[in-house]
Amino acid sequence: MWTRSLVLSAPGKVILHGEHAVVHGKVALAAALNLRTFLRMTPRQDGRVSLQLPNLGSRRSWAAAELRPLLAAASAELPEAQTPSAQQLEELKELAGGKDGHEAVQSVAAATFLYLYLSVASKCGVMPTVDILVWSELPTGAGLGSSAAYSACLAGALLSGCGAISYPLQEGQEVARWTKEELDVINRLAFKGEQVIHGNPSGVDNAVSTWGGALQYVSGKISVLERVPTLRILLTNTKVPRSTKVLVAGVKAKLLKFPTIMEPMLTSIDAVSRECEGILEAMTGDPSQEHYSRLEDLVDINQHLLNGIGVGHALLDRVCQVTSSHGLHSKLTGAGGGGCAITLLRPGTTPSAVEDAVRDLTCCGFECWETVIGAPGISAHALPCLRAEVQKALQGS
Amino acid sequence: MWTRSLVLSAPGKVILHGEHAVVHGKVALAAALNLRTFLRMTPRQDGRVSLQLPNLGSRRSWAAAELRPLLAAASAELPEAQTPSAQQLEELKELAGGKDGHEAVQSVAAATFLYLYLSVASKCGVMPTVDILVWSELPTGAGLGSSAAYSACLAGALLSGCGAISYPLQEGQEVARWTKEELDVINRLAFKGEQVIHGNPSGVDNAVSTWGGALQYVSGKISVLERVPTLRILLTNTKVPRSTKVLVAGVKAKLLKFPTIMEPMLTSIDAVSRECEGILEAMTGDPSQEHYSRLEDLVDINQHLLNGIGVGHALLDRVCQVTSSHGLHSKLTGAGGGGCAITLLRPGTTPSAVEDAVRDLTCCGFECWETVIGAPGISAHALPCLRAEVQKALQGS
Repeated sequence: MWTRSLVLSAPGKVILHGEHAVVHGKVALAAALNLRTFLRMTPRQDGRVSLQLPNLGSRRSWAAAELRPLLAAASAELPEAQTPSAQQLEELKELAGGKDGHEAVQSVAAATFLYLYLSVASKCGVMPTVDILVWSELPTGAGLGSSAAYSACLAGALLSGCGAISYPLQEGQEVARWTKEELDVINRLAFKGEQVIHGNPSGVDNAVSTWGGALQYVSGKISVLERVPTLRILLTNTKVPRSTKVLVAGVKAKLLKFPTIMEPMLTSIDAVSRECEGILEAMTGDPSQEHYSRLEDLVDINQHLLNGIGVGHALLDRVCQVTSSHGLHSKLTGAGGGGCAITLLRPGTTPSAVEDAVRDLTCCGFECWETVIGAPGISAHALPCLRAEVQKALQGS
Repeated sequence: MWTRSLVLSAPGKVILHGEHAVVHGKVALAAALNLRTFLRMTPRQDGRVSLQLPNLGSRRSWAAAELRPLLAAASAELPEAQTPSAQQLEELKELAGGKDGHEAVQSVAAATFLYLYLSVASKCGVMPTVDILVWSELPTGAGLGSSAAYSACLAGALLSGCGAISYPLQEGQEVARWTKEELDVINRLAFKGEQVIHGNPSGVDNAVSTWGGALQYVSGKISVLERVPTLRILLTNTKVPRSTKVLVAGVKAKLLKFPTIMEPMLTSIDAVSRECEGILEAMTGDPSQEHYSRLEDLVDINQHLLNGIGVGHALLDRVCQVTSSHGLHSKLTGAGGGGCAITLLRPGTTPSAVEDAVRDLTCCGFECWETVIGAPGISAHALPCLRAEVQKALQGS
């Protein structure tokens, strides 16, 4: 073990429907976003463990001997271990270095790595000396599950590297995936990473990063959708900063203020999610224009409902207007109040039509990505088969 | 009788909340719009009956003797008479003249007058020779109840003139209103006029023109709200033409397509109307900023719901955006898909703030009126006490 290089990737996530309503017991649909986080793990011969995060401009390394005393603290009962303790996290953050505000993100990322590293090392009884480089196409802090993709990649690499699960890529294969049982192990460890980062995550993001496709989330229960088509989308970041906490509190206040008005709106959003789920399942076999038309209707309706419950923003409306002028349908995704919007693209939407829309959105100061949702979950890759840009990023410095 | 001049006016109407939802058994609130239709009736000595409609550029007159043969056909049982018969309407339209498209509106207006004139003449047994001039501040065909205001004015003038009801204005009074019982008689005759014009009217528009204030309409039942405050509004006409019939059919189709999504949205709109009714009643005694704030919330929420059920329009969104940039809250009123929007103004909104909003709306090509809703219903006026513009319009040519 730890003798070969591993390359793997995990997708981000978008909320397709049900954001905010899910807080009030309604159904949400989350889908894997094919903006991916890539990880390359290579053996080191110098007794050190290192972590490179080029997106954050961060590079850290630790002597394996320096980490050994922390092993005892790491739970030996992976992956059913308890929630990371506050004391454990404090120690890890100290070890991860950089306690000032500027380095907060880097520090949390390093602490997450150390927590997962020590958990796996403890389980397998070895302190592997490796270099891990993680590079992502996902913007951070945009509600696109970048932390879960990071956790899933770390979990997959460390578990595969130590032999707790297989590394599925065979000679000559471009890409491979793990078995359901192995994915379950990865998912549970990725959730631990999410706990280090977020404290009390829902588990949706790491499940999407692990399983891919789409999943239903309701009242704390996550169900992976069996068959999900891949849908082309345009993802637009308005770059308007917002606080999920404030937005969630705003909806709650409105629900208390106007219960008879707001409750049916949440019921309607719930029905949008369920209807969408039905359409996605129906279209897997034989997608028709009618399916896409209905998906577009749902996007439009839910965008209005989300505005109605008070989580819209003028610049999200702008995204909808601009894309509507190109015959495309958009809605906010995630917390709203700014952040990102998704725009459905039909299979037949021409590249020039997409370019025109992107040009107009870019003129508004927005950032756009053309990608797909319903993407595969965590995957093992042959490095030479990845896009040149990704290969280059994974070379490190 | 028929010896003195009468001057009276009746208001238009706006739907405050519940448009479209009312078609599906939900509550709608209609309010009297203080853009008014004025009527002046003066005796003639030449044996003729004349109708001047300066807004339509129309002036017609008939010899009373020429109308006498039609008296028999007019029902003698006012106001419980049957619906005007198709044959009767054909004869009246022929007498009203102008059967080509260009004069269609004038022809219907004249036929309505003749129908009401003959009904009252038949009831009272005289063929009064009068000149009637009707001038309106209301745009026609904008869903603002201009035909009902016209019918109510004609009904009030003819019934008062022939002595079927009193003419309430006393010497020295500026303005006066009829008793409840008399208003009921006026309303029923005005409804006949609406039947001539629209075929199968709901009765809401003539009730608002007659009673003023605001009323609740649900499942065909009209209830006048007891106490309603007068609210300042800005009325904006986007001038986008639309078909109420097509819009109503669109909502119905969407309800059939997505029943579980659409039905709760209609329920939510119903709750908006009921909540608004409660606020209006609560604020009559002592209106507070909190009342206005809640009314604004309802306007915003319903505008999003109306967009959600598919009766919005990009230029109605524009009205909302422009007024929102001035801190004001707007929604479409009536059929949607274009047409008019209402913007709430608080008592403290300064004239310059309103002027700024009007300037920006006018720049978009819209037409604006600053007025009030919850206005008085049909009223008798002393001509010299009316605004100079109205006095001038009522002088005729």
